[in-house]
Amino acid sequence: MSAPETVDICECWARDGLQSWPTVVPTEGKVAVLRAAIDAGINEVDATSLVPPRYAPQFADSHDVLAALADTGVKARVLAPNLKGVRRAVELRAELGGFIDTVGFPISASEPHNLANVKRTHAEHLTAIADMVRCAHDGGLRVIVAVATAYGCPLIGAVDEGVVFDIAARLVELGADRLMLSDTTGLADPVRAGAYHSRARAEFPGVELVAHFHDTRGSGIANAWAAVLAGATCIDASLGGIGGEPSTVEQNHAGETGNIATEDTVVLLERAGIRTGIDPGLLIEVGRTAARVLDAPTRSQVQHTGHGLTPQGAQR
Amino acid sequence: MSAPETVDICECWARDGLQSWPTVVPTEGKVAVLRAAIDAGINEVDATSLVPPRYAPQFADSHDVLAALADTGVKARVLAPNLKGVRRAVELRAELGGFIDTVGFPISASEPHNLANVKRTHAEHLTAIADMVRCAHDGGLRVIVAVATAYGCPLIGAVDEGVVFDIAARLVELGADRLMLSDTTGLADPVRAGAYHSRARAEFPGVELVAHFHDTRGSGIANAWAAVLAGATCIDASLGGIGGEPSTVEQNHAGETGNIATEDTVVLLERAGIRTGIDPGLLIEVGRTAARVLDAPTRSQVQHTGHGLTPQGAQR
Repeated sequence: MSAPETVDICECWARDGLQSWPTVVPTEGKVAVLRAAIDAGINEVDATSLVPPRYAPQFADSHDVLAALADTGVKARVLAPNLKGVRRAVELRAELGGFIDTVGFPISASEPHNLANVKRTHAEHLTAIADMVRCAHDGGLRVIVAVATAYGCPLIGAVDEGVVFDIAARLVELGADRLMLSDTTGLADPVRAGAYHSRARAEFPGVELVAHFHDTRGSGIANAWAAVLAGATCIDASLGGIGGEPSTVEQNHAGETGNIATEDTVVLLERAGIRTGIDPGLLIEVGRTAARVLDAPTRSQVQHTGHGLTPQGAQR
Repeated sequence: MSAPETVDICECWARDGLQSWPTVVPTEGKVAVLRAAIDAGINEVDATSLVPPRYAPQFADSHDVLAALADTGVKARVLAPNLKGVRRAVELRAELGGFIDTVGFPISASEPHNLANVKRTHAEHLTAIADMVRCAHDGGLRVIVAVATAYGCPLIGAVDEGVVFDIAARLVELGADRLMLSDTTGLADPVRAGAYHSRARAEFPGVELVAHFHDTRGSGIANAWAAVLAGATCIDASLGGIGGEPSTVEQNHAGETGNIATEDTVVLLERAGIRTGIDPGLLIEVGRTAARVLDAPTRSQVQHTGHGLTPQGAQR
């Protein structure tokens, strides 16, 4: 358990952040925010979802959003719900370029949650994932899989650690390049976040761990920090802390849940002497742009107080 | 660095929380919140300040607030700005009872900050503190001293770790029973919060360490958690995250700075399997009462989302 020298940040505003947003955000607003974030130093974005537009009208512009990032040098991650989605991701990569780097999809450690979400048992879903991983790899894409509800499930409560790691091990066998032990609904704590990432680091040495914690109960940054100390090398975060489960969209809209805020996360890391490659001052500006595009309040504290860092870096 | 089995919480709403509040809160409102917090399991309160009412009208009711706590079994902490204030604390303890347990005062590790606040150099202030500690101990009170601006100063920027620990060592020599390496303006990070508390734990073995972090930049809970892992046994927190420096009172009023929120802190700890003795559900109710008394929004996330714990405790 020691702090790394660098941590990568994946900016999730445009996909996980907007996934439950009640209005469709204009493509130019999305692109303006993403390009500004990249200018501030973000080098990976969770850019869009390939869920069909009839289910997710927010992402009907997935092609155009990705096309607008092709010249930026960023790595793009896209969500694909099924094999058809992965095929689409491969097509987009072939058309738009290798910056479309990673395709992602979830499997819930809670089987009832998985059944509710994708109408598949674990066994059925893992069979499907095997095909999805193969297709992605054949198309040159890396694969990130989120083990959702890893710390607890809104439907069934406790989720057994053994089940989480059985699924994670199976995903690694199937070829997952990157893994998230995701806390989508704010049920993690720093003790388990640290323990789970330590165990994953030990059991899956070749796999990149990405810390994915929502701030539903105010402990998201503490959980992500615990995951980083335990071996996660990338943190998912969202400008302004935008995001949240569909069921909590009302709270989300009031700014009360969602991903951890990118601005606060980056300032914490830079202050701790951990380099992110991101300019905190520019990032705060981007967060303001993002709040304007959504006409919504921010959950980032540093948006209000400033980053408080000296020009030389951490004030220490 | 390992998680303890229990952590104490000191509820700071009524003193640190209200210190910069722009309106004087009626005594009955303060008492209602404090008694409800105690009923929820809080066993220490930062109850009031003995700064003279002409400087701090918020605390003109210090006697009555303390008198209303005498039958609760809580331990009360009071702030005293100088020797006269400590004498008043001793008088109040003699009159009202031994539940008035601790008297506290700050010294800024940044000498310019100390000069601005109390018009004394470090040497002058430490001389005064020697008398204050003696008077407190003679009157049966324990002493807590806050080394303010320990992680950085809004006036001078970086604060040398050596100065922080020289002052802390001197305070321990003078008899401080409890010590805070305080981050009043949100300039700490979990690496330094952990390192400073580890060092203090090693150098001052007989002294209780109290974690005092404001959430000015969104990392307050992560910093407090790091301090707990490093040996702090008590956390200062404020219902709804109320509080803040006088200079940031506008932001505070908008709910944008202040102490870490007691509700979120307790839920994090209980979820992590660390017992606080506090009922999270009752505490959330108290936080609602506190928000009503102030007619102000809360910064606590669990106020909006619920604690998500099972009746048996942590959902795990």
